[in-house]
Amino acid sequence: MSSPKNAIVLLSGGLDSATVLAHAVSEGFTCYCLSFDYGQTHKSELSYAAALARHLGAAEHRIAKLDLAVFGGSALTDRSIDVPDAAESGEGIPVTYVPARNTVFLAYALAWGEVLPAVDLFIGVNAVDFSGYPDCRPAFIEAFEAMANQATKAGIESNAFKIHAPLQYLSKADIIKKGVALGVDYAKTVSCYRLTEAGEACGRCDACTLRAQGFADAGIADPTHYVAS
Amino acid sequence: MSSPKNAIVLLSGGLDSATVLAHAVSEGFTCYCLSFDYGQTHKSELSYAAALARHLGAAEHRIAKLDLAVFGGSALTDRSIDVPDAAESGEGIPVTYVPARNTVFLAYALAWGEVLPAVDLFIGVNAVDFSGYPDCRPAFIEAFEAMANQATKAGIESNAFKIHAPLQYLSKADIIKKGVALGVDYAKTVSCYRLTEAGEACGRCDACTLRAQGFADAGIADPTHYVAS
Repeated sequence: MSSPKNAIVLLSGGLDSATVLAHAVSEGFTCYCLSFDYGQTHKSELSYAAALARHLGAAEHRIAKLDLAVFGGSALTDRSIDVPDAAESGEGIPVTYVPARNTVFLAYALAWGEVLPAVDLFIGVNAVDFSGYPDCRPAFIEAFEAMANQATKAGIESNAFKIHAPLQYLSKADIIKKGVALGVDYAKTVSCYRLTEAGEACGRCDACTLRAQGFADAGIADPTHYVAS
Repeated sequence: MSSPKNAIVLLSGGLDSATVLAHAVSEGFTCYCLSFDYGQTHKSELSYAAALARHLGAAEHRIAKLDLAVFGGSALTDRSIDVPDAAESGEGIPVTYVPARNTVFLAYALAWGEVLPAVDLFIGVNAVDFSGYPDCRPAFIEAFEAMANQATKAGIESNAFKIHAPLQYLSKADIIKKGVALGVDYAKTVSCYRLTEAGEACGRCDACTLRAQGFADAGIADPTHYVAS
């Protein structure tokens, strides 16, 4: 058996990143989870992330405060832009896009990775998001990995950094099946952009719609708490 | 004449980035300057940055608060590590290295660039820093540019993002000569890692030593205020 390896896992409190954490733990990594307090309007996801880190056996969970709202430009950080229902979203880049979000998040993961050290960085991007978010595509992940290996001592010495995106080619239904097999309790995850203070999902935003369809397609009962309609 | 183009300029309050800003303004860019409050022990550089932005004709200056100290690991953010004199620094990566700093800083520049929009991002890395800092090398700058063009809508549509590092192959003396020609008042810049509250430089840390040698090599009087020895 090889000795345990450290990994940084970006953990949002959502369904995808919870599955990534369960996957990384199952692969034998000692997992250091990283969440961000970036002025998101759905800040309660951070307490879900902390609980998920414990539930899934992470070694540590840290929350980095960061200041993306200083630039505005997204419904997720700019309170003057409403999050639309899925039916109103239309084509192209969604208004819920946060500028350069995955670049910034992975940059922080890289920083923590240099200090720990950990050269394996995990992120939950997946095929469902490819169409709308440039920084969820495989070409972005590859380019970030190449950059990380020029940005750091461990990178230039041995090309050591690896960006793992284990959900990259999975549908939402496949992600859910994978997570259930790994023991993820999805009732402990949140996806909704408009979660109530009581932790109920709206059931109508893009994130809720994709998630509900995923459970339906997987043939698995949806454990999400929705607001009474 | 072409219409004015926006640029993001990373501005630290130091000699190098002040020269970059003067260069970008002289090239006709409308400059949006970005500084970071990242827990640095020499935080007074931020007020120097604000004054430099005005002095050199920037359109705007913003300070993003960020949380690199959460990971520790550098004498510039971890107060338990002393900044050494240049004579004690030794070989290899200096203890003043901040993990993944330029990756994080450029990621923020990219985020602001997406919002403004601005596809020209300026950074003051230069040859003097190549030996010790992986993220100051030309290969890093090229890899970041390639990543930025995968991370963003403007990037994937037209390969639009350009990381400008106009000091990349200049010595400190050449940077100073260039800046003086562009009208930079270097008395308004700070380099010292151990600046006193009165704004006096220690004259003995790595940054002071490089700066003083640069003025000497350029044959230009050094306007830096040093502590009386």
